[in-house]
Amino acid sequence: MQIAIALYERFTALDAIGPYQTLKDLPGAETVFVAEQTGPVRDESGTLALVADKSFADVPRPDIVVVPGGPGQSDQMENEQLLGWLRTVDATTTWTTSVCTGSLALAAAGLLTGRRATSHWLALPMLDRLGVRSTGERVVFDGKYVTGAGVSAGIDMGLTLAGRIAGDEHAQSVQLLTEYDPQPPYDAGSPEKAPAHLVARFRDRSRFEQ
Amino acid sequence: MQIAIALYERFTALDAIGPYQTLKDLPGAETVFVAEQTGPVRDESGTLALVADKSFADVPRPDIVVVPGGPGQSDQMENEQLLGWLRTVDATTTWTTSVCTGSLALAAAGLLTGRRATSHWLALPMLDRLGVRSTGERVVFDGKYVTGAGVSAGIDMGLTLAGRIAGDEHAQSVQLLTEYDPQPPYDAGSPEKAPAHLVARFRDRSRFEQ
Repeated sequence: MQIAIALYERFTALDAIGPYQTLKDLPGAETVFVAEQTGPVRDESGTLALVADKSFADVPRPDIVVVPGGPGQSDQMENEQLLGWLRTVDATTTWTTSVCTGSLALAAAGLLTGRRATSHWLALPMLDRLGVRSTGERVVFDGKYVTGAGVSAGIDMGLTLAGRIAGDEHAQSVQLLTEYDPQPPYDAGSPEKAPAHLVARFRDRSRFEQ
Repeated sequence: MQIAIALYERFTALDAIGPYQTLKDLPGAETVFVAEQTGPVRDESGTLALVADKSFADVPRPDIVVVPGGPGQSDQMENEQLLGWLRTVDATTTWTTSVCTGSLALAAAGLLTGRRATSHWLALPMLDRLGVRSTGERVVFDGKYVTGAGVSAGIDMGLTLAGRIAGDEHAQSVQLLTEYDPQPPYDAGSPEKAPAHLVARFRDRSRFEQ
């Protein structure tokens, strides 16, 4: 089983690492970070670089594909290097997945048309405009398409998918070993729960608002 | 404000990325990944490489230091390259922090002697043997020393510390933008909650059991 995590400039690190940490120990799995070109790929801040060990051309038939989100996603919406690869690999994947605004790239590739999917809360209207039926749920399964909400939701997405693939006991082992017993110091992790003025501030600044 | 995240071979990726994602946007902060030598550093699986842009020698006075854990921590317990650097920078840090078994490295450097601290649940007895007063809490503050429990606890550690440094509103903004509204599909994230046979299995296999 090959798991391919796609990288592009200005991705969000935790979007990629949440699924990585929760999926990489699936029985028989090999994980590979993949991008247009091999070598370091910088995140949204430019201060973190993850190495892509393979190019898209090197990885034509992954079983699972994961597309993280991040500010750089905007530049990918017409990038046929990524979108064409997503269409190609999707023809044979068992699971096609995303975290955060990674679902916008899947949608731009035409893979989510008419399907239920999720994204970062700020990006849900954009997902609808791309012909997807957006939902505010944290993890959404629609056939083999699995999408997670913003950034940290990739941990829940990965753990849920790990359970679906390898059973509850495997996923519980991953949860126990990663000590995933979250205790956030605040309860501000969704637009429904956060202070309204913060939600309004980020909506005003959002690149997805028309 | 400079935040230095220390890397070493066979670290655990999420240990480093949880604090990175939650601390990097502190006002005026610059984050740097640092290791013995610059260049890619491989994680526990060998399939992920994060780039260290600076060597320990390049970063003599960070304001915040973060030490992630991971299987490779065992090889660091007598590595004066890392331990000596930790002692040096600790002399001037505002906050000295760790995630998971990173606290064992801080303890080996002599920085936690007699202090309250936490670690991965499997490593708590080892922390005691190193002269630290271990606690099973998820995030522990003792003066300027902040330790997080296993792997995913680095998100809670980072968010808590971000609030302490820059105020509740900043930390709530980080939580909202990372959509950190955790919804784990299982409730197996601690030894108290996970199925007992899984806890026993991992204790039997642990490198920390005597």
